[in-house]
Amino acid sequence: MQQNLYRIQIVGATGYGGLGLIEQLMRHPNIELTSLLAKTDTGMQLSKIFPHLTGFCDHIVGEVQDERIGENADLVVFATPDRVAMNYAASLIQRGIKVIDYSGDFRFSDLAVYDRYAARKPGMGGKPHQAPELLKQSVYGVPELFREKIQNASLVGNPGCFAIAIELALAPALRSGILNPQSIIVDGKTGTSGGGKKPSTVNHFSEQSENVLPYRVANHQHGTEAEGVLTHVSGSPVGITFVPHQIPTSRGIECAIFGQLNREISLEKIQELYHESYSHEPFVRVLPPGVAPGPKAVRGSNLCDISLFVDQANNRLVIISSIDNLLKGQAGTALQNINLMLGLEETTGINRVPLYP
Amino acid sequence: MQQNLYRIQIVGATGYGGLGLIEQLMRHPNIELTSLLAKTDTGMQLSKIFPHLTGFCDHIVGEVQDERIGENADLVVFATPDRVAMNYAASLIQRGIKVIDYSGDFRFSDLAVYDRYAARKPGMGGKPHQAPELLKQSVYGVPELFREKIQNASLVGNPGCFAIAIELALAPALRSGILNPQSIIVDGKTGTSGGGKKPSTVNHFSEQSENVLPYRVANHQHGTEAEGVLTHVSGSPVGITFVPHQIPTSRGIECAIFGQLNREISLEKIQELYHESYSHEPFVRVLPPGVAPGPKAVRGSNLCDISLFVDQANNRLVIISSIDNLLKGQAGTALQNINLMLGLEETTGINRVPLYP
Amino acid sequence: MQQNLYRIQIVGATGYGGLGLIEQLMRHPNIELTSLLAKTDTGMQLSKIFPHLTGFCDHIVGEVQDERIGENADLVVFATPDRVAMNYAASLIQRGIKVIDYSGDFRFSDLAVYDRYAARKPGMGGKPHQAPELLKQSVYGVPELFREKIQNASLVGNPGCFAIAIELALAPALRSGILNPQSIIVDGKTGTSGGGKKPSTVNHFSEQSENVLPYRVANHQHGTEAEGVLTHVSGSPVGITFVPHQIPTSRGIECAIFGQLNREISLEKIQELYHESYSHEPFVRVLPPGVAPGPKAVRGSNLCDISLFVDQANNRLVIISSIDNLLKGQAGTALQNINLMLGLEETTGINRVPLYP
Amino acid sequence: MQQNLYRIQIVGATGYGGLGLIEQLMRHPNIELTSLLAKTDTGMQLSKIFPHLTGFCDHIVGEVQDERIGENADLVVFATPDRVAMNYAASLIQRGIKVIDYSGDFRFSDLAVYDRYAARKPGMGGKPHQAPELLKQSVYGVPELFREKIQNASLVGNPGCFAIAIELALAPALRSGILNPQSIIVDGKTGTSGGGKKPSTVNHFSEQSENVLPYRVANHQHGTEAEGVLTHVSGSPVGITFVPHQIPTSRGIECAIFGQLNREISLEKIQELYHESYSHEPFVRVLPPGVAPGPKAVRGSNLCDISLFVDQANNRLVIISSIDNLLKGQAGTALQNINLMLGLEETTGINRVPLYP
Repeated sequence: MQQNLYRIQIVGATGYGGLGLIEQLMRHPNIELTSLLAKTDTGMQLSKIFPHLTGFCDHIVGEVQDERIGENADLVVFATPDRVAMNYAASLIQRGIKVIDYSGDFRFSDLAVYDRYAARKPGMGGKPHQAPELLKQSVYGVPELFREKIQNASLVGNPGCFAIAIELALAPALRSGILNPQSIIVDGKTGTSGGGKKPSTVNHFSEQSENVLPYRVANHQHGTEAEGVLTHVSGSPVGITFVPHQIPTSRGIECAIFGQLNREISLEKIQELYHESYSHEPFVRVLPPGVAPGPKAVRGSNLCDISLFVDQANNRLVIISSIDNLLKGQAGTALQNINLMLGLEETTGINRVPLYP
Repeated sequence: MQQNLYRIQIVGATGYGGLGLIEQLMRHPNIELTSLLAKTDTGMQLSKIFPHLTGFCDHIVGEVQDERIGENADLVVFATPDRVAMNYAASLIQRGIKVIDYSGDFRFSDLAVYDRYAARKPGMGGKPHQAPELLKQSVYGVPELFREKIQNASLVGNPGCFAIAIELALAPALRSGILNPQSIIVDGKTGTSGGGKKPSTVNHFSEQSENVLPYRVANHQHGTEAEGVLTHVSGSPVGITFVPHQIPTSRGIECAIFGQLNREISLEKIQELYHESYSHEPFVRVLPPGVAPGPKAVRGSNLCDISLFVDQANNRLVIISSIDNLLKGQAGTALQNINLMLGLEETTGINRVPLYP
Repeated sequence: MQQNLYRIQIVGATGYGGLGLIEQLMRHPNIELTSLLAKTDTGMQLSKIFPHLTGFCDHIVGEVQDERIGENADLVVFATPDRVAMNYAASLIQRGIKVIDYSGDFRFSDLAVYDRYAARKPGMGGKPHQAPELLKQSVYGVPELFREKIQNASLVGNPGCFAIAIELALAPALRSGILNPQSIIVDGKTGTSGGGKKPSTVNHFSEQSENVLPYRVANHQHGTEAEGVLTHVSGSPVGITFVPHQIPTSRGIECAIFGQLNREISLEKIQELYHESYSHEPFVRVLPPGVAPGPKAVRGSNLCDISLFVDQANNRLVIISSIDNLLKGQAGTALQNINLMLGLEETTGINRVPLYP
Repeated sequence: MQQNLYRIQIVGATGYGGLGLIEQLMRHPNIELTSLLAKTDTGMQLSKIFPHLTGFCDHIVGEVQDERIGENADLVVFATPDRVAMNYAASLIQRGIKVIDYSGDFRFSDLAVYDRYAARKPGMGGKPHQAPELLKQSVYGVPELFREKIQNASLVGNPGCFAIAIELALAPALRSGILNPQSIIVDGKTGTSGGGKKPSTVNHFSEQSENVLPYRVANHQHGTEAEGVLTHVSGSPVGITFVPHQIPTSRGIECAIFGQLNREISLEKIQELYHESYSHEPFVRVLPPGVAPGPKAVRGSNLCDISLFVDQANNRLVIISSIDNLLKGQAGTALQNINLMLGLEETTGINRVPLYP
């Protein structure tokens, strides 16, 4: 029943973000991967670049050329850096082709937030957005927060990896008003794959093994992103001090999130609040009190684990959230969004049990 | 169609070997996991022991009691240490229940080989086999070598993790007679999960990180196991010097295997020989010349990767084989065996693409 | 000139804390290690337990017996768990033998703080102190804060590893009054050696690799310890929400510390403040603005690195402090204390350059 | 007594090999590091490139310019890639300046061996040696094998990291004639720092973590180097099949070495043979039977550990040798050579106890 398959093209197929989606699509019953484009390694079989795909995906990587973008596709995924998708999205949508972008190009409906984000992202030099008119129609791709809009969207901005881990952790508490929205502190830890496939000194094994490396201290663009989204979700201006760290793992994000409670409230009540928000979500687990096993417990899956603690002496809420940065933090959420945009069952093809240990 | 599901019981459910099978069975369309028994943590939900299974497997772990073994099961998997299954197998088979054992109890049709194996295994003290009469009917569980026998077997001895990596790598060469069977040297490397879930000094993170630890040098029981199986497969007595190492990874086995070539033969011819042996195998990949990406390229999958090299100056063959020790090295091959024994399609439920990076 | 050597005995010599001191003392020109006592592995050469010491330290480990404690020693180091040294200290001091204890027994002059500490420490069950009368004369062993008292002390309580990293980072800011002392949040990360040499599930390589594990969330005894010390140092009650994590490294601690600024103050002013506090300290480095290389930059050394950041939008100070948990976090500081107590030059024998990468 | 210090210049000061030497020289009582030259990061303080050296070495890195090479130096160390030192050595020696080179330029007295080495080294394209006339006077820098020659040398070729680990392990056995010199097989494992400081895909944390990567299988230049040296040492042509692997550690080399015994000989006799060779060596430890703790036991030190095993069934000797690849494998041996060439006590400044765990 080849004729019923939806056709997907991935632009930026040779990075880890594209790879995460390809690995999943190899087993997706309703989707055909019709073409892969990239800037590097063009003309090579994907399995030459990623030998683990030998026998699974022997597609030839095509060059990113204007005329090839959208070719033979119902939906195009831009697994590309910032400022690529913004040049192609309008024309694709006009041709009836849906678009998901991994970068920050379409995460913000408010241009001012985009500008703050862009100012913090290294190498972006505060350049202006090239397609600001699309920001009104683009939807932020966190299904747990914006499911209906995504179902009807032609253009989705897939969230940042740290951003989604922070947003899912804080949304119930901020919406309910139990937290002071100006008191939020986040300490994030990510595996090195969050920095992508390009070798650099900070990602060099010799340098990163046996270290924990803070970076962009109180100055990371995903802090800005989460502030914007949570302000929108909660209706009050949210301020976050966010310090990310790179730790010696290849995958996995953990965030420890701290906020001042506006009033005395028991852990039980807060657990209840979170269960109400997430009990119907297929990919969010609110763990029992005291259980916080870290990102290894979600490795290889699309899950987000949330654990809640109250520091009574200081009247603070501590939230621990854990994701696989390449799945729930990127390609897994992207596939949720793809399924929603194509009218498929949201969980199709996203059924991995975490791989442990 | 619950009535069509085969019922499986796992004894020794709380170790990594049982876990590997449980993770796979959560998605198996034809199998129902009816009970889990163990010696420790009985009475607990499995998801309390392994929080990553929260929401996937909330079975209560039952106690290993004689009368419960085989209860409500078409097939029992013993994911137990040596000398457990040998006490139960005969009675289960008599009741028409099939048996797979992870230990060395049923890997050897020849009692003398078992005794050599048992003499090397730490803690076994050369005790005699308790059910030697079953060795004639038990089948060694490497489907690529003994598929038909497994399909008709009631009792399968699942192979040792290093042993299967060595056997798949050497079988074609030894069968064809191109190698001197007395010249084999194997240097193995395994992640720490091969040593099981029980904490010990050699598996302690502080000790094992940043180290590579040789152990049981030229004295590991999997060397004996592979010698026995390869002698049987090739028809000539095989002698192996095997040195295993523990490396700082949680999963993965790589073996570098060296053998003297009996005559000059090109790499191309040897590649051909291996392709003939394995081109129809769903879980063995003979990689192109020069490609040997290591066990990370099979992580999370049931694949065995084989790479071939010729050292012309010394007329030696070098074979690199890589597996995920918990899947192809244990629970993945076990599921292949289960499928074959139950008359199911061999690959059912074993469809993970390797998870990379 | 053997007659001029000070004689040291280590009780608890077979753990990582004792080991860290032994490694240093092998090269100390003024100290002789006269005996090693322990509860386990007694009668063995130390180099059988720690093969890396072969040829360096072939002492036989003696049994911890009352009559042997203090034998042939000018100073006894208790590298033991809580509630050991408290049984021996009074008698040793009476005999003119100086005492350093690694545990919490003598870190607190205030019994109420000790009780809060003891309530949080796992396995201590809130038992009462056995030698409360000594708390008045014991000195807290952070030379950068209490140097003179240590020089005159007979009894020193060596600090907790996280505690010293937090205290050195916060002392200048809290003393100067620029921070709200009730607003402190600390996210700590430690290598597994902080959990000691005893194997356990949380320290098991297979479990800890590729994970980051929060533990005792907002409930760790080193938070209490730092609160007590910093309250004493600053003169105002300090409240800390402290969340420690175990990361997949064997050594190294990093703390990200957040505090609300009481007034607008530039990063330059704060750098100045810290340089004033620490420019004469041999083992504290206040790094240039923007530089925060993590604990790998102090590995193998007795250094504490401090980096300062201001989050202007939220008016918060962020301090990053990094130590080698087994040296500055334990055995390095202990040797500073030993040198001070014995009237030796403080830095003697503590001269390792960090080992990188 | 500044006037009594020997002056050393390091060319290639910003790589790991230069760094290893700098870290040691910071504490050397008889040597002054007068200048550091490099091709990259010139004009920067070394402590900006390597923040762990802050306060220890704040030299400015100078540019590699012909006229600066040898400036203000009694001895120049080329911590540079192949084909750099060969352009400068003759002129330096003429000026009375001694030279140590880390590359293969001066490791071979026999040009034919150099050519085989150069043919295997990636990127060297079999180019001819530029100073073949110096090969007769250069000395191979393994003090345990060529101590006297090094003491009298003006030009020393420091050994390859794998090569020295293989040579020290095999020299006693091959010299004594107990091994078949054509039967040698070596399986090597190295941490990633052996590949240098330049980021690349194979050294990328995300790729290398949780993997073990064979490379240059039976085709690595250090195999050729060891063949040449051991042929020279033993007087019979030695043939080695050498397969190196990269493992997920930053430092450390382990080699498992296999050879056919020419006659039956007990392990005790072989241990004796090795003790005779090495009992007076300050940096080689022949470990007791059965003890083989791996390279973590020599980390941070200049030691080479050797463990011996006999596989009686196959009449093979198995030797395990372990070194810190950046110290005994490079900068530690270099400092031994420096001390010898300058007439200093060989062990001066090389006194680190291994850092464990």
